[in-house]
Amino acid sequence: MKTLLSGAVVVTCNESHNVLRPGDVLIEDDRIAFVGPKYEGDYDQKVHLGGYLLMPGLINAHTHSSMTLFRSKADDVDLRTFLQERVWPLEAKLTDEDAYVGSLLSAIEMLKSGVTCYVDMYFFEEGLVRAALDTGIRAVITPGIIEVPGLVKALGHWDQRTNTVIDFCRRWENYTGRIHTGLGPHAPYTLPFEALKEISSEAKRNDLPVHIHLVETKEERDNFNSKGLGSTVGALEEAGFFEAKVISAHSVWIEEGDEHIYTRHHAGVAHCPISNAKLGVGVAPINRMLSAGVNVGLGTDSAASNNNLNLWEELKFAPLIAKAVSQNPLVISAEQALWMATRLGAMAIHRSDIGVIANGMKADVIALDIDRPEFLPATTASDYVHHLVYSANKDMVKHVWVNGSKVVENGQLLMLDEAETIKKAGVVAARLLEG
Amino acid sequence: MKTLLSGAVVVTCNESHNVLRPGDVLIEDDRIAFVGPKYEGDYDQKVHLGGYLLMPGLINAHTHSSMTLFRSKADDVDLRTFLQERVWPLEAKLTDEDAYVGSLLSAIEMLKSGVTCYVDMYFFEEGLVRAALDTGIRAVITPGIIEVPGLVKALGHWDQRTNTVIDFCRRWENYTGRIHTGLGPHAPYTLPFEALKEISSEAKRNDLPVHIHLVETKEERDNFNSKGLGSTVGALEEAGFFEAKVISAHSVWIEEGDEHIYTRHHAGVAHCPISNAKLGVGVAPINRMLSAGVNVGLGTDSAASNNNLNLWEELKFAPLIAKAVSQNPLVISAEQALWMATRLGAMAIHRSDIGVIANGMKADVIALDIDRPEFLPATTASDYVHHLVYSANKDMVKHVWVNGSKVVENGQLLMLDEAETIKKAGVVAARLLEG
Ligand SMILES: [Zn+2]
Ligand SMILES: [Zn+2]
Repeated sequence: MKTLLSGAVVVTCNESHNVLRPGDVLIEDDRIAFVGPKYEGDYDQKVHLGGYLLMPGLINAHTHSSMTLFRSKADDVDLRTFLQERVWPLEAKLTDEDAYVGSLLSAIEMLKSGVTCYVDMYFFEEGLVRAALDTGIRAVITPGIIEVPGLVKALGHWDQRTNTVIDFCRRWENYTGRIHTGLGPHAPYTLPFEALKEISSEAKRNDLPVHIHLVETKEERDNFNSKGLGSTVGALEEAGFFEAKVISAHSVWIEEGDEHIYTRHHAGVAHCPISNAKLGVGVAPINRMLSAGVNVGLGTDSAASNNNLNLWEELKFAPLIAKAVSQNPLVISAEQALWMATRLGAMAIHRSDIGVIANGMKADVIALDIDRPEFLPATTASDYVHHLVYSANKDMVKHVWVNGSKVVENGQLLMLDEAETIKKAGVVAARLLEG
Repeated sequence: MKTLLSGAVVVTCNESHNVLRPGDVLIEDDRIAFVGPKYEGDYDQKVHLGGYLLMPGLINAHTHSSMTLFRSKADDVDLRTFLQERVWPLEAKLTDEDAYVGSLLSAIEMLKSGVTCYVDMYFFEEGLVRAALDTGIRAVITPGIIEVPGLVKALGHWDQRTNTVIDFCRRWENYTGRIHTGLGPHAPYTLPFEALKEISSEAKRNDLPVHIHLVETKEERDNFNSKGLGSTVGALEEAGFFEAKVISAHSVWIEEGDEHIYTRHHAGVAHCPISNAKLGVGVAPINRMLSAGVNVGLGTDSAASNNNLNLWEELKFAPLIAKAVSQNPLVISAEQALWMATRLGAMAIHRSDIGVIANGMKADVIALDIDRPEFLPATTASDYVHHLVYSANKDMVKHVWVNGSKVVENGQLLMLDEAETIKKAGVVAARLLEG
């Protein structure tokens, strides 16, 4: 099946930041088979996209999808209160079905806003897979591994849990070409150090990514340091943790030089500037990391600390807060920001087959309606990139293709009844939150 | 004419942050004539708003409307380069009609995103009035007064210009009940100190607000200090500047104690956190100002330094950046943020008749479609406030009333052909930017 997307402005997000005005993109089955000014070959179907902009789908490098059920339930508090007093007690009441419904809400919100792939760390992983399959989104599901009293009963100790997760990954990896898997050790402060080593070597053995929260708060950093093991990232390197394909969420409080450890081992960072700001934990030094060649992607974190999954906000917030705290308007350009949300984000999550409109890549593509005031004026190629970062928003996203299939048309989901899901979620929320 | 808006969740933005679930709001001519759980009186027309949320229209306390024409033309540079190399040369080429078209684009963008009132500082003021009249928005138009070489030829020296502006205000003040006026001395660094004194006393004599940029950058503060006049705000107080109704944009670099000068004289502050971040000038101490009782509103500043006029972004960004730089998640609550975008913003711009859904207020009201994932779950009154600040966005805004008249229905402008305006703006931009 060959679908020709024709006549749109194409923001490729390739290394040269090429913009075609206009261009053609050919989708053949699950892949992009052509991108250029004009396609002259055969096709089965042609979509006229004058007045639209085509770009790769956005990549949400870090979230916890079922937690949309806790939206606005843990605001204006610190991370310790957030987890221990607000989130964990609610999680103790969650069922499989709840987690599935929460994850559905997230997938709907993401797809409609142009996010075509997300990295998910949560429990109830079978429900997470179902939610991704039912909505049509691409997901990297990294089931959480954690040793906190309330959850050990449900999940088992970390070693049993790791076995469960590895088994999960073997069953689901690359299912339908858009389910991907990995291991999700929660953080160094919720697992024994020994566990981190073991989980990482299991991941390496199975060629799976490891998705972890690292040095999110100053308190976390100081506590780790006080154990006499040195800096978190340094100690993990020494233990061989970075031999696996690591996705490190946050990295707000890395030490001077840790960025080179990331580069050396091709570890990716999921920068979550809104969650970090909202919890008052600080601002991650992404300018330093980018300069050192670290692959930095953007993540929303969960809806409980954001409180939405609209990656357009991260796309704008990341350069803004970097400029604000450094008092330097030159750091983090629009081009760098867009790159983090797309191609660099793909590299950060170890998926080299997405994040760019180029031959042979998976066809995860979004079309934005740009016939509107927020996109005026557009007289140069760079205007489009700058408008995308500093002016665009999710309401411009009209069509979405994932893995070559159209999943959003004119802003409406094609695979799922959104109204029905909202109704279901209302019932779940009422039981969970009012009960 | 009495229109009953019935059955919506009503977020009043009054002093008690009352939320009615659901409630009725009666609009009688240009005013709100009832708000409560159930209206039992007579009406001419009833609008059923189940599944919607009603709230006061957002207030954009500081912008330069025609500058949407320069969107993304001055990114990732400092304020000096922004003004002197990017913006001023473009402004030198503007015509009346250009300014009108640019201002139309802004009004469309604001109305459709739920901003019902904005404070505008620009030139070509007759065009600004026309744009506001043609779209249906409420505007506080404060024509710019400035002494920079490129503009003196067009505008005259500050004293002549002040006379022109006073004449403009007398002609337009309260026209149709939604055009308001004031004086717009640009900044202490673009006008003689003597001029600021004189403009303020003219404003006081005519009971008009004075809208000015104050201490936006550290450089500006230091330059002023170096003249031996002390701190900017202090020197202006001594000169009697604050006897008029002042709207102070930015105030990023006020001195310790200046907040009390603002409180003493009921000066309002237009906090523009996105513009300030983008230009890397710093973060205004709004927690200190709010604690001192200063009326702080939110402004987008122009589309050249933002790059849109979507106040939902400021509504979320203001508390986030305050938490981030103080590393304290407790500062600036969701309630405070929403209050700045509505009622406190109204006080900041010296319009006590808007910003709240209450009896006798001007009927500037917006209706948001809340039947969507981003607004789930909502089990308590405070959930609605928190969702509005941390999760909502402009795409939820469906209906807008200004001064009692419906101006946006189902997301479409009623008074103006948007597509035609976009076409016109494209032509203007091409001439201005490519020529
Ligand atoms: Zn997280
Ligand atoms: Zn300004």
